[in-house]
Amino acid sequence: TGVATMKFKSPPVNSLSLDFLTEFCISLEKLENNRACRGVIFTSAVPKIFSSGLDITEMCGKSTEHYAEFWRAVQEMWLQLYGSNMVTVAAVNGSSPAGGCLLALSCDYRIMVENPKFSIGLNEAQLGIVAPFWFKDTFVNVVGHRVAERSLQLGSLHAAPEALRFGLVDELVAEEKLQEKAAAVMAQWLALPDHARQLTKSMMRKAVLDRLVAHREEDIQNFISFVSKESIQKSLRMYMEMLKKKK
Amino acid sequence: TGVATMKFKSPPVNSLSLDFLTEFCISLEKLENNRACRGVIFTSAVPKIFSSGLDITEMCGKSTEHYAEFWRAVQEMWLQLYGSNMVTVAAVNGSSPAGGCLLALSCDYRIMVENPKFSIGLNEAQLGIVAPFWFKDTFVNVVGHRVAERSLQLGSLHAAPEALRFGLVDELVAEEKLQEKAAAVMAQWLALPDHARQLTKSMMRKAVLDRLVAHREEDIQNFISFVSKESIQKSLRMYMEMLKKKK
Amino acid sequence: TGVATMKFKSPPVNSLSLDFLTEFCISLEKLENNRACRGVIFTSAVPKIFSSGLDITEMCGKSTEHYAEFWRAVQEMWLQLYGSNMVTVAAVNGSSPAGGCLLALSCDYRIMVENPKFSIGLNEAQLGIVAPFWFKDTFVNVVGHRVAERSLQLGSLHAAPEALRFGLVDELVAEEKLQEKAAAVMAQWLALPDHARQLTKSMMRKAVLDRLVAHREEDIQNFISFVSKESIQKSLRMYMEMLKKKK
Repeated sequence: TGVATMKFKSPPVNSLSLDFLTEFCISLEKLENNRACRGVIFTSAVPKIFSSGLDITEMCGKSTEHYAEFWRAVQEMWLQLYGSNMVTVAAVNGSSPAGGCLLALSCDYRIMVENPKFSIGLNEAQLGIVAPFWFKDTFVNVVGHRVAERSLQLGSLHAAPEALRFGLVDELVAEEKLQEKAAAVMAQWLALPDHARQLTKSMMRKAVLDRLVAHREEDIQNFISFVSKESIQKSLRMYMEMLKKKK
Repeated sequence: TGVATMKFKSPPVNSLSLDFLTEFCISLEKLENNRACRGVIFTSAVPKIFSSGLDITEMCGKSTEHYAEFWRAVQEMWLQLYGSNMVTVAAVNGSSPAGGCLLALSCDYRIMVENPKFSIGLNEAQLGIVAPFWFKDTFVNVVGHRVAERSLQLGSLHAAPEALRFGLVDELVAEEKLQEKAAAVMAQWLALPDHARQLTKSMMRKAVLDRLVAHREEDIQNFISFVSKESIQKSLRMYMEMLKKKK
Repeated sequence: TGVATMKFKSPPVNSLSLDFLTEFCISLEKLENNRACRGVIFTSAVPKIFSSGLDITEMCGKSTEHYAEFWRAVQEMWLQLYGSNMVTVAAVNGSSPAGGCLLALSCDYRIMVENPKFSIGLNEAQLGIVAPFWFKDTFVNVVGHRVAERSLQLGSLHAAPEALRFGLVDELVAEEKLQEKAAAVMAQWLALPDHARQLTKSMMRKAVLDRLVAHREEDIQNFISFVSKESIQKSLRMYMEMLKKKK
């Protein structure tokens, strides 16, 4: 049918580790270069979690070189996904904070399971960190400036019904209907001639993609100097401790 | 009363042919330069159709010079209408795809007949073509980035109730109330002092207008090279055949 | 608690006179530099009016030097407030036209008393004047381009329920609940780590703030030459006469 499904299976919470990101980019690039593949559905094989976002262990107590390599991989994931020529549908079957939310926001369409226990949002501010400008640009393109400003400042995680109301996701469905719905949406998008759809998508996203491309090295340096601060290291360690205790 | 009504009467479907566009621009410029005229209502004299958009016969099997002349006329229509100092109200009494939708989007206010059989949208992608960047800019200014991105990629034609929900039109009325409503809206806008209203309008639209002015020749060259492709010519011919059979 | 309340008490209508603006800026700067202060609630001590906006007497029959000084103070108020590192909540307990609306729009969050007799909006066009580009930028960031375009051209004052629907304010409450609600909202925003919240706020607002900083002198010259026109002086005098008769 020309549609691939990429199922995230990195327990316990599908963190975006360097390994995950590298594998994600290789897989996506293969699909991108496979002319038989016209669309990808992203979903999770881990119950209750779509993706928990960037892997904090990659940002804690590592070398400058490691931070640079990690951040470049995060950028690459976004550049490939937001700029993909394929139709991309996020079938969000669990919570999706921070980088997990970015992943969903970078798709063409977002369907979320209507479970109010599942939430989605760019909650970086809650952790004492700041979403990078291209997370913000992607968010503003989806929900508009006002919703983005408030949500980013509060580091809000929006329960599924609120996520729909604010436009973070396009629709909610019962969990058992999710894959069927994702396939139906994909079929609708694939009914369009590829070339015109791709050029249109590129026209809508180019300004924001170009902005990261132009500032990529600077953005890496910013990340390194930010994450290397002792205050940030401390709050990330505290956050990890909290996560461990939660288990 | 200082209000003109421009009624499109170019059967069967008010296509934006070179002749239509030329006459439109001459008429609009006359009104613009007539200090007694402060507002224009645009509506259709053809049943069920506001305007079917750009005339495809102008893009098929013609010379490079013809394509250039045609595209310059399309640009001119938009530059004059989107930049008009007058209050412009679209009384959309029929379907309004592609260029017809652009015409409505370029006005200050859009009232549509509440008939769900009438639809409006920038459906270029359905035809295998891409809406120019200034169609896109105008659309984004009306409905926001997210709605525009989805609608343009899908080449959606929105039935009147959906068009209202997505903000493509400002209100729906019964067909028999349309002219009365348009006149009432016009009166409300004309209650403002012209000079302040005009400067405000210009402040809101200048960035987008300037962008086409700065890239006008490039945009014409893009259109020519796009429309001259054999694949595009073929799909336009197929589309025209389909339209003929429909009749 | 780290929260200050700034109560406007400049009867009869809390006009933004040069004195009011100067005192506002000095007070805000003191709070900004007081590390114990993390948030400010703005509200009015005058019944039924939050702030009536720029004081027209400062724009009528004064010297060029006076106009320059006044306009610089208006700019300064906005630069400080829109760019504040503190959490800023507007508790809008009365009508808030023009500059009063700008003041509310520049905060992080707006709560309005649900009295439909109270209205808010950038109604400059009604007075025959044009909102400056940075009023417009602030407005667009809150309500989006389409709502801003229509509202600015019509110089609309939106009654509280409509203001909520269009996104000019974030919520409505009964007058007796206003201060309690403002405190609760403030507590929610202050639950975030300051540094991350401040950097996020700055990321969202910097482009628009920078634009005025870059064009500040030009904007002052524009104001002077606009307000010095005899036609504008006349319409401002007429407006002041009307206000006096109303009393």
